[in-house]
Amino acid sequence: MVGSNVEVDATMSLNGSLANGKSVEHLAVADVESFDPTAVVAEPVPPVVQANNEDVTEPDADDESTGDKDAYMASVLARYRKTLMERTKHHLGYPYNLDFDYGALSQLQHFSINNLGDPFIESNYGVHSRQFEVGVLDWFARLWEIEKNDYWGYITNCGTEGNLHGILVGREVFPDGILYASKESHYSVFKAARMYRMECEKVATLVTGEIDCKDFKEKLLLNKDKPAIINVNIGTTVKGAVDDLDLVIQTLEESCESRGIRLEVHVEGVEAYLIVMFLGGAPKVTFKKPIGSVSVSGHKFVGCPMPCGVQLTRLKHINALSRNVEYLASRDATIMGSRNGHAPIFLWYTLNRKGYKGFQKEVQKCLRNAHYLKDRLREAGISAMLNELSSTVVFERPRDEEFVRRWQLACEGNMAHIVVMPSVTIQKLDYFLNEIIQGRSIWYNDEVQPPCLAADIGRDNCSCALHK
Amino acid sequence: MVGSNVEVDATMSLNGSLANGKSVEHLAVADVESFDPTAVVAEPVPPVVQANNEDVTEPDADDESTGDKDAYMASVLARYRKTLMERTKHHLGYPYNLDFDYGALSQLQHFSINNLGDPFIESNYGVHSRQFEVGVLDWFARLWEIEKNDYWGYITNCGTEGNLHGILVGREVFPDGILYASKESHYSVFKAARMYRMECEKVATLVTGEIDCKDFKEKLLLNKDKPAIINVNIGTTVKGAVDDLDLVIQTLEESCESRGIRLEVHVEGVEAYLIVMFLGGAPKVTFKKPIGSVSVSGHKFVGCPMPCGVQLTRLKHINALSRNVEYLASRDATIMGSRNGHAPIFLWYTLNRKGYKGFQKEVQKCLRNAHYLKDRLREAGISAMLNELSSTVVFERPRDEEFVRRWQLACEGNMAHIVVMPSVTIQKLDYFLNEIIQGRSIWYNDEVQPPCLAADIGRDNCSCALHK
Repeated sequence: MVGSNVEVDATMSLNGSLANGKSVEHLAVADVESFDPTAVVAEPVPPVVQANNEDVTEPDADDESTGDKDAYMASVLARYRKTLMERTKHHLGYPYNLDFDYGALSQLQHFSINNLGDPFIESNYGVHSRQFEVGVLDWFARLWEIEKNDYWGYITNCGTEGNLHGILVGREVFPDGILYASKESHYSVFKAARMYRMECEKVATLVTGEIDCKDFKEKLLLNKDKPAIINVNIGTTVKGAVDDLDLVIQTLEESCESRGIRLEVHVEGVEAYLIVMFLGGAPKVTFKKPIGSVSVSGHKFVGCPMPCGVQLTRLKHINALSRNVEYLASRDATIMGSRNGHAPIFLWYTLNRKGYKGFQKEVQKCLRNAHYLKDRLREAGISAMLNELSSTVVFERPRDEEFVRRWQLACEGNMAHIVVMPSVTIQKLDYFLNEIIQGRSIWYNDEVQPPCLAADIGRDNCSCALHK
Repeated sequence: MVGSNVEVDATMSLNGSLANGKSVEHLAVADVESFDPTAVVAEPVPPVVQANNEDVTEPDADDESTGDKDAYMASVLARYRKTLMERTKHHLGYPYNLDFDYGALSQLQHFSINNLGDPFIESNYGVHSRQFEVGVLDWFARLWEIEKNDYWGYITNCGTEGNLHGILVGREVFPDGILYASKESHYSVFKAARMYRMECEKVATLVTGEIDCKDFKEKLLLNKDKPAIINVNIGTTVKGAVDDLDLVIQTLEESCESRGIRLEVHVEGVEAYLIVMFLGGAPKVTFKKPIGSVSVSGHKFVGCPMPCGVQLTRLKHINALSRNVEYLASRDATIMGSRNGHAPIFLWYTLNRKGYKGFQKEVQKCLRNAHYLKDRLREAGISAMLNELSSTVVFERPRDEEFVRRWQLACEGNMAHIVVMPSVTIQKLDYFLNEIIQGRSIWYNDEVQPPCLAADIGRDNCSCALHK
């Protein structure tokens, strides 16, 4: 039989509860053919996230938009806007800078801007923004010290696309290479390995979240006969840890010395990455070091209405791809085909307005605020860690899931974190601190104690009954 | 040595001419540290596409935005807007509906809307638009006849992401499956095969661009021992050809009859796909047939400021993925991680405003206009083809590259095409027809004759000296 012999039980419904037990509800809606323009869509109640779906209803029977329909849509959008404002106000857990004003660019929303294919080669589609895209890429090329004629890159749809691209470049250069990544790397790195059918070695981490180069060396020595492709994190997802790039390179060099093994370092940056770039004392990310590609998200520290990212690699790698791979013609060296042409303009706008020095100032503010948060948490007897070079404060997971949702905290095991972005002010942190301190006085008592976080963030940072 | 032994010649510069000889020029720009806010950026001259890059310059030395800077940026944007208007007016070659008005949604541009992960599972990030996304998915599920509890899907970044996802689902269900696709399939299909390290068989096509099921059967019989994953095109990229879905399924069934081979049909739709969905007489795309997934672009017929798409698959496939694959936890069944939350709202808005019947009307208009274009071309002695069920008119490639660029025509060999979208009016077509007829009187004479297109679009459609 065709197509029906995939023997899987479809007993687990994605519409029901999965993983974290939360779900988006389905509402009964009108059929394609028999529609009911008067159908009432229940209110999405802020700030609880289980909102009802906004159904698509068919327009009135005369087949023209009616005033009712327009009014219905306007009211849905007005309610939605209110919800977004409320949620934006309470957001703390994700590394997104929600503080931006792109009013000057709203005039461009009328255009279908598409940079399909390669940023450096015009397609015949004229409604593009390649001149802005290349301007932004040049800015990052200067930041990461690679000459214009030596780099290739593009504005991606998100950090994951950058990782997918960088790892694909690595694989095409070293087809039998093994991908090494610390176990605290972004999940997209392991997804890439699976997608690309690559061998992958998870490397242990220190308590800070940094890659453990001792374990890395051992794993390298176990696979002496194969090239290495390495993912380096400059700001891990959960702890904001910064891998020691120079030590990673040194470890590689030691392990292949006098063996002539071909090695490739692929550096990729996940969240908060740009923060590190603007800090003195951080391991410098520069193409003068033997790295293959660098990727960074654009919607995080910079801030953008939609996800986007920047991916830069060495031109010679892309040329190798273009020459060797029939399908990857020069016009198809990106992962996606059609590409959002608005994102580069948002980035261009912010880079121009703030500039390098503007970002430096914001980074300093973020770090000051992160230290303030960590200190206040510790003073209140709450386990908390703040890595050097990071604005990610990891702390004891609040015991109340409603509280977690309300502040939109990302959690893992007993840990929660707040990524202090430019949109996170002292005022917002005080509001949060007061609430968590009040909450803990209810959640904990002589019988129920706060969890121990020594294994997660180290004994020194743990304030549990045993370690405080 | 680390990283420096990738032995490729970097003699081909992507900044120079590649492939089609066109390029985006680099301009000399200010360094990160030493900036010059008075740097003049040369005018991008519409409608020629080799625009200069919009450099990122650093703000003034007092480190605050100055009036000069603001004025400079405003002028760049005003010029750019003018260029976009000019280019939008002349666009004909790509299947994008440029006729939309999302003014009511500009209020949402202030928010960083991100549907990270799975549409059906809330993440803790509250600024999302899942309720709109699921509303849109439900609409397509009704269109393609699959029950709410049986499907899974998401709004993608573009058609390519849909293809990448559909083919990945196929490969995870049939790890040793061979991917079959007609040679006129979208290039992303072959890119996927390479990315995923899958065996891939290119199947021949008829002159219309449809898959040749005779050749398909032969190729299936050559690989009796392996499962088949098939990519079916409902509207090919160049000719807008519609594969005969029912014949594809019948061919599959015949070839595996009594052999018990596991087969999977993966249907994917590329450009203009929705047009077919709203036509009587077209092979019905429905999940009642043994198909694994359907994908369609959202920025094409529907129209959207940025690329997007809809991907629907069977929930049981995603469950299989979620169970079998550690990295593909239920929260990571999409290709991308962070996902544009604005796109679903644009789609929701248009689906609600136009509805099924509104789209039907627009399709009828597109087909009428496409027939008008084809007839006028043929009357003028120009080779031209218009497939049934399609609004893509394939015709003789204009001999003047400047003309091709001006009208933004997509070309392949001796063929060019115009995809008649709702934004392509009779008036626009007349303007184009007058120009091409005038142009040909200059391009061709007794010595230089128009090319023969018999091999591309069939003898009956060819108007060359031999076949007219």
